Amino acid sequence: MKVVIGIDIGGTNTVFGIIDSEGKCLALSSISTNEYDNPEIFVSFLARAINKLIVSLPFNTRLAGIGIGAPNGNFYKGTVEFAPNLRWKGIINLVRLVKEFFNVPVILTNDANAAAIGEMLYGAAKGMKDFIAVTLGTGVGSGFVVNGKLVYGHDGFAGELGHTIVYTNGRECGCGRKGCLETYASATGITRTAVEMLGNSSENSILRNYSASELNSKIICEAAVCNDKIATEAFNYTGKILGLKLADAIAITSPEAIILSGGLTLAGDLILKPVRHYMEYYLLEIFKNKISLLTSTLNSENAAVLGAASLVWNEAAK
Amino acid sequence: MKVVIGIDIGGTNTVFGIIDSEGKCLALSSISTNEYDNPEIFVSFLARAINKLIVSLPFNTRLAGIGIGAPNGNFYKGTVEFAPNLRWKGIINLVRLVKEFFNVPVILTNDANAAAIGEMLYGAAKGMKDFIAVTLGTGVGSGFVVNGKLVYGHDGFAGELGHTIVYTNGRECGCGRKGCLETYASATGITRTAVEMLGNSSENSILRNYSASELNSKIICEAAVCNDKIATEAFNYTGKILGLKLADAIAITSPEAIILSGGLTLAGDLILKPVRHYMEYYLLEIFKNKISLLTSTLNSENAAVLGAASLVWNEAAK
Repeated sequence: MKVVIGIDIGGTNTVFGIIDSEGKCLALSSISTNEYDNPEIFVSFLARAINKLIVSLPFNTRLAGIGIGAPNGNFYKGTVEFAPNLRWKGIINLVRLVKEFFNVPVILTNDANAAAIGEMLYGAAKGMKDFIAVTLGTGVGSGFVVNGKLVYGHDGFAGELGHTIVYTNGRECGCGRKGCLETYASATGITRTAVEMLGNSSENSILRNYSASELNSKIICEAAVCNDKIATEAFNYTGKILGLKLADAIAITSPEAIILSGGLTLAGDLILKPVRHYMEYYLLEIFKNKISLLTSTLNSENAAVLGAASLVWNEAAK
Repeated sequence: MKVVIGIDIGGTNTVFGIIDSEGKCLALSSISTNEYDNPEIFVSFLARAINKLIVSLPFNTRLAGIGIGAPNGNFYKGTVEFAPNLRWKGIINLVRLVKEFFNVPVILTNDANAAAIGEMLYGAAKGMKDFIAVTLGTGVGSGFVVNGKLVYGHDGFAGELGHTIVYTNGRECGCGRKGCLETYASATGITRTAVEMLGNSSENSILRNYSASELNSKIICEAAVCNDKIATEAFNYTGKILGLKLADAIAITSPEAIILSGGLTLAGDLILKPVRHYMEYYLLEIFKNKISLLTSTLNSENAAVLGAASLVWNEAAK
């Protein structure tokens, strides 16, 4: 039996798992990411933890490769470059570091690109050749698939929809610029929106019982379910901005579907309805009523790991 | 000798020519587009005019195909759909109409996509695999090339950068929406900017001697060359908006270069300098100082025809 290790490197934790060719997760584990400011030490701990998972597998198991999804991961160079949410600074050759421990193909790309391949092989985009996968988590990530292939671009950094600009003098973004989509349309973005609205409005709201640091997208979602006006407005505003930028992205690559995933999509129709409404509203005539807006069908617990593993299965299938 | 007919359908005129495999234009002619509100009659006149060119060719010439660039041209369906600048309404199956006169492969796409292929085969993007070609004429068109292939997308309508939205409540666009890039960054867009600035400012300006309908990008360019403040400001504002939206597009497809063409680029550094400045200013860190901003090296008189012809040569080369 052949298996692949999928690794999802997040700002807080790194989750990894063993995935078979059907996309089944055989084992899952994690270590802390932000405990290590030295990437070499991080990788040595990660390798040890992976080996612990591997020894539990049947004797005839063969490791076919390792797929890694990481913020600012570069497919061509195998590097993680200037990732704002990681403690490692500058350019880290992560693939080289991992290869010191494992003599198998190691493929790295950014986490959202990995998610896109995961959706194409095992999820909501199965069988599709042109789609955009958008992750709405702490940030906004995206992977563009054109004619069945992920768009890496000349530099390997394609798919940064979250860092297209909504307002040139807008909110401060972790990337050092202002007004990026991810400062509005992520789980943290909607929280910033709610906090702003609480300041601008004198409307009663459940959300007034929480400090800005306590507030999060889950609380806003629960409030919106109870018809809290500000919470509902926050979803509407988030959907409007995301719908607008999705319409822009559609004008560029003409996909058949948008696949949304990540924490914010757990709010279901609260976020999907305004996104769909404004996306259609802002779409150019030739695209109207044609583009499916779907949510990921992957198990959210291991979707990112599955996406990372699918990088290897996708290459193997070529 | 094999040749290809390239046809560039514009709102006013349709230019067509005979192009050899080296991209050399052997003959060029044109007929009116907007004289015909019936596309069938238009095509019959066009066919007659093309045949006049063909009979002038040496006896051993073989017609390898016809390439057509047209606004809202659909590569997959061979149709022109709801083109705002043409008198033909609805969906026109142009490829079928042309095939009634010529028994050769006929390929159609939108004019900017055709221009992108022309740049790749014969122009500034020769040898490049990932670039964006942007035409700044009456409108703003674009063609995205990813990994050596033009992005058509699921529906064949990809590459509508000109209809991504800058301001949701911005200028009225021919597409029926508001705030599209082409209402700002085209030759007509800069004219609208200048007219607006003449109203908003009390600054002296050469441009005050022209009526709004007389003003055009050439006059604004000449005024800017004479250090006219409003004209210079109009170029700066246009460059700022185009630079911003190019930075957005770069974040999505990570190209190695942007190739600008069309009337507005005749202003040279007047437009290129602010575009380059603001594009760099708005770029995400990982893309800064990496993307070449180039202008077309194709002869502007037949660039669109060459682009259209290159559709056929590009397919033949596969």
